[in-house]
Amino acid sequence: MFRDVGLGKLIAKALEEDVGHGDVTTSAILTGDERGTARAVAKEDMIIAGIDVFKEVFLSVDSDISFHTDCHDGTTVKKGAILAEISGAIRNILTAERVALNFFQRLCGIATLTQKYVEAVKGTGAKIIDTRKTTPGLRDLEKYAVKMGGGFNHRFGLDGGVLIKDNHISAAGGITSAVRGVRNTIPLTMRIEVEVNDLEEVEEALASGVDIIMLDNMKPEEMRKAVLHINGRAIVEASGNVTLGRVRQIAETGVDYISVGALTHSAPAADISLNITMV
Amino acid sequence: MFRDVGLGKLIAKALEEDVGHGDVTTSAILTGDERGTARAVAKEDMIIAGIDVFKEVFLSVDSDISFHTDCHDGTTVKKGAILAEISGAIRNILTAERVALNFFQRLCGIATLTQKYVEAVKGTGAKIIDTRKTTPGLRDLEKYAVKMGGGFNHRFGLDGGVLIKDNHISAAGGITSAVRGVRNTIPLTMRIEVEVNDLEEVEEALASGVDIIMLDNMKPEEMRKAVLHINGRAIVEASGNVTLGRVRQIAETGVDYISVGALTHSAPAADISLNITMV
Amino acid sequence: MFRDVGLGKLIAKALEEDVGHGDVTTSAILTGDERGTARAVAKEDMIIAGIDVFKEVFLSVDSDISFHTDCHDGTTVKKGAILAEISGAIRNILTAERVALNFFQRLCGIATLTQKYVEAVKGTGAKIIDTRKTTPGLRDLEKYAVKMGGGFNHRFGLDGGVLIKDNHISAAGGITSAVRGVRNTIPLTMRIEVEVNDLEEVEEALASGVDIIMLDNMKPEEMRKAVLHINGRAIVEASGNVTLGRVRQIAETGVDYISVGALTHSAPAADISLNITMV
Amino acid sequence: MFRDVGLGKLIAKALEEDVGHGDVTTSAILTGDERGTARAVAKEDMIIAGIDVFKEVFLSVDSDISFHTDCHDGTTVKKGAILAEISGAIRNILTAERVALNFFQRLCGIATLTQKYVEAVKGTGAKIIDTRKTTPGLRDLEKYAVKMGGGFNHRFGLDGGVLIKDNHISAAGGITSAVRGVRNTIPLTMRIEVEVNDLEEVEEALASGVDIIMLDNMKPEEMRKAVLHINGRAIVEASGNVTLGRVRQIAETGVDYISVGALTHSAPAADISLNITMV
Amino acid sequence: MFRDVGLGKLIAKALEEDVGHGDVTTSAILTGDERGTARAVAKEDMIIAGIDVFKEVFLSVDSDISFHTDCHDGTTVKKGAILAEISGAIRNILTAERVALNFFQRLCGIATLTQKYVEAVKGTGAKIIDTRKTTPGLRDLEKYAVKMGGGFNHRFGLDGGVLIKDNHISAAGGITSAVRGVRNTIPLTMRIEVEVNDLEEVEEALASGVDIIMLDNMKPEEMRKAVLHINGRAIVEASGNVTLGRVRQIAETGVDYISVGALTHSAPAADISLNITMV
Amino acid sequence: MFRDVGLGKLIAKALEEDVGHGDVTTSAILTGDERGTARAVAKEDMIIAGIDVFKEVFLSVDSDISFHTDCHDGTTVKKGAILAEISGAIRNILTAERVALNFFQRLCGIATLTQKYVEAVKGTGAKIIDTRKTTPGLRDLEKYAVKMGGGFNHRFGLDGGVLIKDNHISAAGGITSAVRGVRNTIPLTMRIEVEVNDLEEVEEALASGVDIIMLDNMKPEEMRKAVLHINGRAIVEASGNVTLGRVRQIAETGVDYISVGALTHSAPAADISLNITMV
Repeated sequence: MFRDVGLGKLIAKALEEDVGHGDVTTSAILTGDERGTARAVAKEDMIIAGIDVFKEVFLSVDSDISFHTDCHDGTTVKKGAILAEISGAIRNILTAERVALNFFQRLCGIATLTQKYVEAVKGTGAKIIDTRKTTPGLRDLEKYAVKMGGGFNHRFGLDGGVLIKDNHISAAGGITSAVRGVRNTIPLTMRIEVEVNDLEEVEEALASGVDIIMLDNMKPEEMRKAVLHINGRAIVEASGNVTLGRVRQIAETGVDYISVGALTHSAPAADISLNITMV
Repeated sequence: MFRDVGLGKLIAKALEEDVGHGDVTTSAILTGDERGTARAVAKEDMIIAGIDVFKEVFLSVDSDISFHTDCHDGTTVKKGAILAEISGAIRNILTAERVALNFFQRLCGIATLTQKYVEAVKGTGAKIIDTRKTTPGLRDLEKYAVKMGGGFNHRFGLDGGVLIKDNHISAAGGITSAVRGVRNTIPLTMRIEVEVNDLEEVEEALASGVDIIMLDNMKPEEMRKAVLHINGRAIVEASGNVTLGRVRQIAETGVDYISVGALTHSAPAADISLNITMV
Repeated sequence: MFRDVGLGKLIAKALEEDVGHGDVTTSAILTGDERGTARAVAKEDMIIAGIDVFKEVFLSVDSDISFHTDCHDGTTVKKGAILAEISGAIRNILTAERVALNFFQRLCGIATLTQKYVEAVKGTGAKIIDTRKTTPGLRDLEKYAVKMGGGFNHRFGLDGGVLIKDNHISAAGGITSAVRGVRNTIPLTMRIEVEVNDLEEVEEALASGVDIIMLDNMKPEEMRKAVLHINGRAIVEASGNVTLGRVRQIAETGVDYISVGALTHSAPAADISLNITMV
Repeated sequence: MFRDVGLGKLIAKALEEDVGHGDVTTSAILTGDERGTARAVAKEDMIIAGIDVFKEVFLSVDSDISFHTDCHDGTTVKKGAILAEISGAIRNILTAERVALNFFQRLCGIATLTQKYVEAVKGTGAKIIDTRKTTPGLRDLEKYAVKMGGGFNHRFGLDGGVLIKDNHISAAGGITSAVRGVRNTIPLTMRIEVEVNDLEEVEEALASGVDIIMLDNMKPEEMRKAVLHINGRAIVEASGNVTLGRVRQIAETGVDYISVGALTHSAPAADISLNITMV
Repeated sequence: MFRDVGLGKLIAKALEEDVGHGDVTTSAILTGDERGTARAVAKEDMIIAGIDVFKEVFLSVDSDISFHTDCHDGTTVKKGAILAEISGAIRNILTAERVALNFFQRLCGIATLTQKYVEAVKGTGAKIIDTRKTTPGLRDLEKYAVKMGGGFNHRFGLDGGVLIKDNHISAAGGITSAVRGVRNTIPLTMRIEVEVNDLEEVEEALASGVDIIMLDNMKPEEMRKAVLHINGRAIVEASGNVTLGRVRQIAETGVDYISVGALTHSAPAADISLNITMV
Repeated sequence: MFRDVGLGKLIAKALEEDVGHGDVTTSAILTGDERGTARAVAKEDMIIAGIDVFKEVFLSVDSDISFHTDCHDGTTVKKGAILAEISGAIRNILTAERVALNFFQRLCGIATLTQKYVEAVKGTGAKIIDTRKTTPGLRDLEKYAVKMGGGFNHRFGLDGGVLIKDNHISAAGGITSAVRGVRNTIPLTMRIEVEVNDLEEVEEALASGVDIIMLDNMKPEEMRKAVLHINGRAIVEASGNVTLGRVRQIAETGVDYISVGALTHSAPAADISLNITMV
């Protein structure tokens, strides 16, 4: 099950944003006594991610709502599948509906897009990995959705790992001097990754003892050469404008990881709707 | 200029999420004295939205950073255009970079997609309008971006207007009885909108004196008939699975507004990068 | 039942403000095992508002407290009536007492004052409506109390409706130009209201197509003329230094709404006390 | 000058409450370039309290606003007096106006009412003192306003002093046993006050060594006897349904302090308006 | 039982600080279904303080965890004693463990050190009292721990009592003038304490009618003279570089209270460990 | 310079905790116009850490205070050294004093204690490293202080690195199976550390390919054997009841890191005082 110490606060904020001074329509029309059941239905094939978040939104509005699901995060569902049944006071289900779907559709959308990339590189040994190009406020949820789609996680944030980029390198006056001081300043538990642009830099990175080498915007042939040269002495990540069309070609160069910003910054929402039946 | 009382807090949250215990890479390599200039470059044609948010992120990290731009929200820029120049301590520019871009790319993405819909209905008189299908925590910014793309705003949240949907109607036992009690419960400043599915319901909605009628998932021919029948006695909004491919056909039915969830829930991020030069 | 997504936080803040580092008196004298029942008693006739808020404060301090009431918001109670019985650990009842009463007495006070205005205009067709002159932090609760007293709500805040005042008009260079641009900038669900000072401005407001006309500080005869002239083409609100003594005269001019700042900014607290019996 | 570590947050909350998703009227009509001056005018005689809070609200919205005043908290102003001049972007002045006035009118209202009680007991030696019957969230400001009106402060909250009431006494089995344990549990810096109902209890309170004796709802003659009997061995506070009509009679009994809940729970707002001139 | 309105928030903050984006180790290895029991064991003799805080951390992570203890705050336990048994999902127990111990070890450490000072002055009549030299964010808990160790509390904060120090005195131009204005500005429930450096100042303090006199950094002989001179006319507190070695000598001078900053700023953590058994 | 996105909030919280409803002593005695200079003086030899935090507290209370220092974090100062000069309104300096010192004394205390451990292992090649046994709320500051004392940082929190402890191992059924699944679940940038108790487990850990091996509570001879056996194939950390007396013996076994909980959970505050001169 997904667990996140900040989830309750995040949902509360989202509800405040949407409900504000109150759900005027629902308060005006419903007495609060009407009961019913809402069914969340997949309107297209998708990978599920965030079913617990979906549930938590309803329970945050009304802890007496009963929520039933047979869905599990990380599994595929077909168009038409019933993802969950939510029963209780219709008034509160209606108030929670939009926020609950806004979270859930986004997370399923990310998992579904991730899975397409994962499928595209199937059999190559390459892994799809996310970036920090996430929606402000939703990083943990979005990175979780990437994992549910079969992807892997890069660092959670700037405090979660060392990634030395071109600007760091030029500020330090070269890869060697950039890497040199780092190990003694960072937490013991971190690996060091460095971004390189050509084979010469690959060589310098290896010599400086980094753990991970990121091949940035290289052509496939060059990547292949880099992978051969590195030969297991460091983990290899490919990065830069990766699309569904290009990803297999990159994967076949032998890199270990391919990072894809689009997983989180450009995934379309999964199509899910809520059908309510009164009782 | 864009103004939002909660913007400072939103940016602070986003920085906390990304920076956490500190930017370990930058702290390890840069002394803090290195200065330089970063140029934000459009990597594709786009509509600008959120240039002030972009600026605020840098200033939140370091109020001594100088930010210069000739861009204005709501205008089109071409691939290659320089959107802003940010000068100051490179260390702080690097720490702010990702969060600043995460906001800005998303908002420009929304404005750019909105503008495509607006173009598609040009000349018809129909207006493109957003929904509540926004990213949790970012609603105000996203709705602002829709306006910058030439779209219009529906209500900000559940407290900002009455929208009587099918579930409200069935709970109340019909459109007439649903609408009846509403006027005296809601703030004086609100209009009342009701969702209808066919011409019979259009008639009932008109009779009950609503201000706006939403034609939900109707076929174009039916919409045309509804528009003719309503004949200016209420504002008409079309809703339901609107795509770029279908939107013109809907617009030509004569509806006043067409609401599009995809504007905010499925807009791909605009491609913007930051190039840094040390001095 | 009253519902507000921010209520829990509001009560927590109020308890922090009052309890701070701890209720030193109660901690010093009571062991925590003493149990008893507190009865909230009306010390004067009043309209009830906020019985759920009153309850929530006790439950926020101690979720094991049992709270019983036969009261309903919006009903009149007589002096001497028992409004609620609160049973449980006396220590916690004593700690919650003052904050609970501070909320409840204020809300009942507002409902009671509102009802006096409502009574005063009985039979005229005019409705009593509130303003934004509320206590910082308590707006939603206070506007709710106005409704419980038989009044109506104006907009919740600056984001909840358009009210074009004299300063907006002079900045725009007249009513016509002020109103012109507004419709296309605001959310679809909002009405437009404009403040006018004389019949000439009434005419201009009507011509510009506003939904609501506020007659500001006009004399009754003038108001009557304005109402006749408007003749149903816009909703009419009277505003400005309305007192219990003057309100009927204003109502008899035929206006639809009369806004009264005093409902929320000058209502005396209702007199309620808590009598505790140990067991 | 008034200083409060939480003031910034309190004002931010109040602005969020009022402005929410944005001031739609002002944004629609004003470009942001219009400049002008607003004058705050007293519409009745009053005691000033909270001029700094008034100022801070404007500066919180726009730090470029210039605020000038010759007013000092605690002084009397006459009807018609100009309390402050606020110059800058009219758009931002309009957005801040209502929240600024809501704070300021309330605080001046409290100071003005307090001063009436202070005048009423002039020459008797009795001091007017506040209670914990304050508006949730505004206690510090309201207690400050009481001081500006010439009143005195009772404890800030439950953590600020010991006040042993009838329920504490009956739980402990008498005044003597209630007081006994208290001294060793509370912070060194606190006095102990006990509530009594008759002369017998006065005697017991004195014997138990309390610092302050509160005469609760006693008749004037009895109070006089109590004061004579106490004879300086403890401070004497009178409490219970004190009105402007009764307060002098109570003061003449010789009590040291008279606590008045109405100062904070029932003070009508002072009448202040803002007149704006464009430039 | 210990009660603190802000405790929930404090624990949530501490968990956010430690858990952040998630407990990666535990999530990777445990399924969430493993159950077991953790025993908290005292690794040295100690005074217990904060057993409820310890419990609350586990329950904050997982409200289904069952927590059993026979320990009571304020009692002594021997090395090897089992302080609590915590049963439930091991995953959640492991996630909560460190934060729970960080609170508990600190509070027991403070109580244990306090008790050493209390023992050292046994029989002298002097009481050990804390200061404001507490850890930022933990004041209430730390002052509670001092009480559990047999110590007493000085004021909770700057708003909880008057302590006139040398700088206040020199600003006012002497003790007499410093004390003069204070009584009428502060809440009725506060005592006044003044810091003095020699017998002359003691005399001036007495004459000005203060409640408590703090002898600051005086030599024992001088303290003894001061105590004799004061002779019960004020409470006497000794302060300044008090160590376990010196405290008895100070106590024997006859002072009422001895304040010790080290209780809270330099107490070593008590040694407690958690042993987990799977089932 | 030290930088932390959450520092402002942390200081604000600490000030709220101490100042609460206001500094009653200072407000009562000082007018606010008195100006002066405070000198922070080291009362013993110490390592400086947190001079920027110390400064920020004063500036948070009053941004007009001028703060001058020649101190740098990480350097040694002698007893009597002047650490900083703070000039401005004495009233505000007095209000900030205690909170500023509470932070600063704690951080210098940690740096000073750390440095003693660092000195003790000088020449051995072993590094002193911290743990998660920090004060709730102060982790980043305390870990920073450890670095200023010459120590190194272990992970920031549960989300910052994998540390597989005995409970994880028994839950997984052995080191091999515990480690197996981990790599694919955690962020790419993390190392894996495992805790072992004997040489057999060392062997199993090496075979499973971990990056760091923690020797938990082993005897020095055993540690030496483990180090020889590991022979550079993994980083070696020693852990468990490390004291100043034992640390050198441990260091001489050849381990790379020695973790010491006492650095943060039991460091006595450094002795620093503030002397104020009025002008």
